Amino acid sequence: MEKMTLSSVEVTSEFWQGYRDLIVQSVLPYQWSVMNDQAEIVIEGEPGGKPITSKNSHVVANLRIAQGLEEGRFSGYPFQDSDAYKWLEAAAYSFAYHPDDNLRKITDRLIDLIAGVQEDDGYLVTYFQIECPERKFKRLQQSHEHYTMGHYIEAGIAYYQATGNSKALTIATRMADCIDENFGLEAGKIDGADGHPEIEIALAKLYELTNEQKYLDLVRYFINRRGADPDFYAKQNLADGLQNDIIAGMGDFPPSYYQADGLPVNQEVLEGHAVRVVYLCAGMAHVARLTEDRELLSACDRFWTTIVTKRMYITGGVGSTNLGEAFTTDYDLPNDTVYAETCASVGMVFFAKQMLGNRVDSRYGDVIEKELFNGALSGMSLDGKHFFYVNPLEVDPEITKKNPSRKHALSRRAEWFGCACCPSNLARLITSVESYIYEVTKDTILIDQFIANKAEFSNGVAIEQVNHFPWGQAIQVTVVNPLEKPVKLGIRIPDWTNKGYKLTVNGKDVVGSVENGYLMLLLGEKETQLVIEFDLSVKLIQANHSVRYDIGKVAVQRGPLVYCTEQVDNPDSLWKYRLLLEGEQKSVHRPDLLGGVTVIEAEAALLVDHSEALYTEYQAPMTEKVTLNLIPYYAWANRAEGQMSVWQHVAIKG
Amino acid sequence: MEKMTLSSVEVTSEFWQGYRDLIVQSVLPYQWSVMNDQAEIVIEGEPGGKPITSKNSHVVANLRIAQGLEEGRFSGYPFQDSDAYKWLEAAAYSFAYHPDDNLRKITDRLIDLIAGVQEDDGYLVTYFQIECPERKFKRLQQSHEHYTMGHYIEAGIAYYQATGNSKALTIATRMADCIDENFGLEAGKIDGADGHPEIEIALAKLYELTNEQKYLDLVRYFINRRGADPDFYAKQNLADGLQNDIIAGMGDFPPSYYQADGLPVNQEVLEGHAVRVVYLCAGMAHVARLTEDRELLSACDRFWTTIVTKRMYITGGVGSTNLGEAFTTDYDLPNDTVYAETCASVGMVFFAKQMLGNRVDSRYGDVIEKELFNGALSGMSLDGKHFFYVNPLEVDPEITKKNPSRKHALSRRAEWFGCACCPSNLARLITSVESYIYEVTKDTILIDQFIANKAEFSNGVAIEQVNHFPWGQAIQVTVVNPLEKPVKLGIRIPDWTNKGYKLTVNGKDVVGSVENGYLMLLLGEKETQLVIEFDLSVKLIQANHSVRYDIGKVAVQRGPLVYCTEQVDNPDSLWKYRLLLEGEQKSVHRPDLLGGVTVIEAEAALLVDHSEALYTEYQAPMTEKVTLNLIPYYAWANRAEGQMSVWQHVAIKG
Repeated sequence: MEKMTLSSVEVTSEFWQGYRDLIVQSVLPYQWSVMNDQAEIVIEGEPGGKPITSKNSHVVANLRIAQGLEEGRFSGYPFQDSDAYKWLEAAAYSFAYHPDDNLRKITDRLIDLIAGVQEDDGYLVTYFQIECPERKFKRLQQSHEHYTMGHYIEAGIAYYQATGNSKALTIATRMADCIDENFGLEAGKIDGADGHPEIEIALAKLYELTNEQKYLDLVRYFINRRGADPDFYAKQNLADGLQNDIIAGMGDFPPSYYQADGLPVNQEVLEGHAVRVVYLCAGMAHVARLTEDRELLSACDRFWTTIVTKRMYITGGVGSTNLGEAFTTDYDLPNDTVYAETCASVGMVFFAKQMLGNRVDSRYGDVIEKELFNGALSGMSLDGKHFFYVNPLEVDPEITKKNPSRKHALSRRAEWFGCACCPSNLARLITSVESYIYEVTKDTILIDQFIANKAEFSNGVAIEQVNHFPWGQAIQVTVVNPLEKPVKLGIRIPDWTNKGYKLTVNGKDVVGSVENGYLMLLLGEKETQLVIEFDLSVKLIQANHSVRYDIGKVAVQRGPLVYCTEQVDNPDSLWKYRLLLEGEQKSVHRPDLLGGVTVIEAEAALLVDHSEALYTEYQAPMTEKVTLNLIPYYAWANRAEGQMSVWQHVAIKG
Repeated sequence: MEKMTLSSVEVTSEFWQGYRDLIVQSVLPYQWSVMNDQAEIVIEGEPGGKPITSKNSHVVANLRIAQGLEEGRFSGYPFQDSDAYKWLEAAAYSFAYHPDDNLRKITDRLIDLIAGVQEDDGYLVTYFQIECPERKFKRLQQSHEHYTMGHYIEAGIAYYQATGNSKALTIATRMADCIDENFGLEAGKIDGADGHPEIEIALAKLYELTNEQKYLDLVRYFINRRGADPDFYAKQNLADGLQNDIIAGMGDFPPSYYQADGLPVNQEVLEGHAVRVVYLCAGMAHVARLTEDRELLSACDRFWTTIVTKRMYITGGVGSTNLGEAFTTDYDLPNDTVYAETCASVGMVFFAKQMLGNRVDSRYGDVIEKELFNGALSGMSLDGKHFFYVNPLEVDPEITKKNPSRKHALSRRAEWFGCACCPSNLARLITSVESYIYEVTKDTILIDQFIANKAEFSNGVAIEQVNHFPWGQAIQVTVVNPLEKPVKLGIRIPDWTNKGYKLTVNGKDVVGSVENGYLMLLLGEKETQLVIEFDLSVKLIQANHSVRYDIGKVAVQRGPLVYCTEQVDNPDSLWKYRLLLEGEQKSVHRPDLLGGVTVIEAEAALLVDHSEALYTEYQAPMTEKVTLNLIPYYAWANRAEGQMSVWQHVAIKG
């Protein structure tokens, strides 16, 4: 019996179509103009660092210079090409819901340009081609060569699948072959892995598309040799010249920062740079799925557990420090010196999706949802032209300005960045969001995400999901099953419902059976109408008391959305409010606010200082009864600049 | 009528004599061996940075090399000489209570060595003499030349006053004359000030000793020209070579960091490096006192107010960030990324003392006391051989290890530092602590500090103070007045008593008159016995609610001592304890603990997590009734390494 697959899926969700339309109307054209140095913008440097005032991004210029179409020097980071590739990937996905001849011409020409830059052996990284071809593959710790080509490979696959453009795919396979020629255990090859994981994701995808065994072998090689020699980078750096860091300072980070201090499969925990960690995890989980490698999956389980149960912010953000953009340690989750890079939240979605491919368990979809509706989505403004690299949970613009260890936690999104990985990462996630709605196992269709859509499956089944999620609580699912062969359907029951849901099947109340967090149903009729209602009442969430920064506080959540307070809605300094635990929290939908959001009005007490003195003897605080106004976290920083806080101090009423 | 002066004062306080004995028995010999590269120690680098593993400190070696007594290169910071000078100053003060022939030989020889290094024009900074004489005075932003010589001037004055060694004073005046020759408004002179204030304090002292007008003119010149040209440092740096930072990176700090972005007397607030700020303030206040300059005093008032009412930690620590070792902004007082450099707390004592010299007001003595008993004293271990540069209010050693923005907040004092300014600063403060006990105005003797002592005044009055401070509440003051001429006596009423005190005069209860925070008495009898009792009950202190990190918390204080919890006394993670506001806090004196301290046992609730999950729906916490054990903050980090916290979460009983 042939494997059941998803044939097509069209997003109909007003919420998500809004974002997807924004991508095609604003984000893609905007990013294209930036990459062509045609936008008049201010570029934020290292988050909180000096703004870069020179040319925009030089991405396309680098490609043209590398091909000899114009004169000039390379400009940017060694992975600058990848901005174009992620943009291209996002564009490719967008054709599925927004065919656009003009954009198609641009992207086809971009493919041609890229093909023209690619060298005979398949190599393509413009930094090295323009500036220092003698240094190719010689400083893998920092060169991002596999990372850069890996992003093309992902883009090339997406473009080929969207348009049938076979040149796009050929560029990708030639890159993979080039890497295969140069890396491996055989004599004459380099035995080591790129300092920034990414190629693992790309090669796994390439294998799945082409079924070429060499690509699976190659990715398994990288996963099994990364960190085999913890001194690999040190040796390469020495041979390449210790003073010759390609990215200043990167030589100082230890191998653990690059997850290369030992074989990942043997590690208890992966440390270091957060985006590298989650990309590596995503690649490992993908390979584990393809090869049914239990040891690899075990390692992924360990990494998943540590991140999600000890090192993840409530918004889904990961990465506790700007110094290294890295994980730190268990339960170390400061809200104002946090990093929570947008790319890392996007990467968590990739990781979670691959884990779901290994094992049916709702906790993966819970994290996908958390990122989609909070930590990843907050990376973009509502106008599609401003972005966050860092996604803090507590911000005071005055402190951001004056305290250097908070300066990376901006309270206003930037127009662009010197290192511009985040905007295009978010764009490609949003334009491919439909691919996260379903998971099809051997015999079950899982509805994993509550994103309104119309889908068709290879066995003739069609599913339509209608909802007003995340605002309204009813999820309406219509399953059309023309062949009337029984089909297993699983619907994720999100963790925030406390396992509660109300289900009607064709109008009748049904108590279903929940397995691994999915409500399992066997549907054999020609048409089945399901209505599931989740509990969308406001929840107050606390953190484990090992997280010292959240003690005495709660976060407010409604459905999948984490909420926050913003200065613009609350006149006093945000830290002076105390949410009343025994008070009321009222949800109010405001269609004219922030594109249409449900806000929460919570009864609170506002602390009033007895005196202006800095330190005084404790007195029971004077308080005023007030309303604390909260908005969804993803929508913050779209109005007047000011303080913001996810965690709220609490008081007991009375 | 001649001005009344303090003739002599001998510290009899067990508490302070213990520290003063420790200085002469341990600290001075230890520091001397370090400066002679004879100690086997580990040197902490930049706080939290890489340990320096090479030679100890090269201080004496630099002097010997500069004089040509040995071959070699300079090693250390450009201000390395000042370690020797502050040590010398501490030794000089120690002779008053611990005459020591061996030490005297060493210090006399050191004076000779220094004299031999001094150049004909009076210049002495070994870095430039050894490495680059052509760069003298050419990079004032970073050279610390006036800073270094200023510290000698202070030491030379102290040494001359302690021993009569006139060579010591001559070295100082020649240094001052050298600076006078080279700096000023006249043609051919350099018109600018040293990047690190210090010379102002030194010249003011030199003027007071010598009465030479030129020194007063010189210090007024520096105060009135600092920042007159905000580009002064930039121009010098350019001429000296932009790439030639003497201390790497210092060229990047803006003029405000050096309090040189405008005339200090015109500034609302002084920003930047905390030690520079407080040294400048001390110098300005000293000059304001000498010249009765009201505009200057006004500026000092503004700076005092901002620091003490908006930017000072409850321990007396100042400096909210390690990045720049600097102030940040009002109410920005994070407890774990704090800097609170020991030197800055020592500098606050200098500033406060000079303010008291300008104006009788108890708030200055309150800060002196706070620093002496908390923020400065915590800089040294009980064994006198380990020191803190940074004095945090919240530490978790695991987080210090793993989170780079907390790595400067050590939980164990270091044996020495690459930049070793703090240990000798604390040593000279402790060995001169008697100079802070009294303030003699035109007609009043103020008892400003509760440090047991015997003192004699120029009008024949003798005062003896006996107490068990900070443990016991009774201060016994015997005033012997042989001439029976009425003498005005003022006794500071500390802010922590809430203005409460019990006074008996010759056994009779008296309600005194308090002016500007001093209990004023007119004493005419041959002998008067005063007993003052202060309220030493435990106080719970809160911070202004603008300090967001302290919301929902209290600090525990008893008398002048701020208390803290340490892991070694409290089995669970410290952040899980909630002090019960309506519970009991018991003081218990433990003579065998930490050299003999009063500890506080507070009723508390220990939070117990309902589950291991990271985020759960809020439930009223499960708690256990426990005792929270606190020790004086100055005594922390002398036992097993672990967490520490000054601020305690609170709960209402019931």
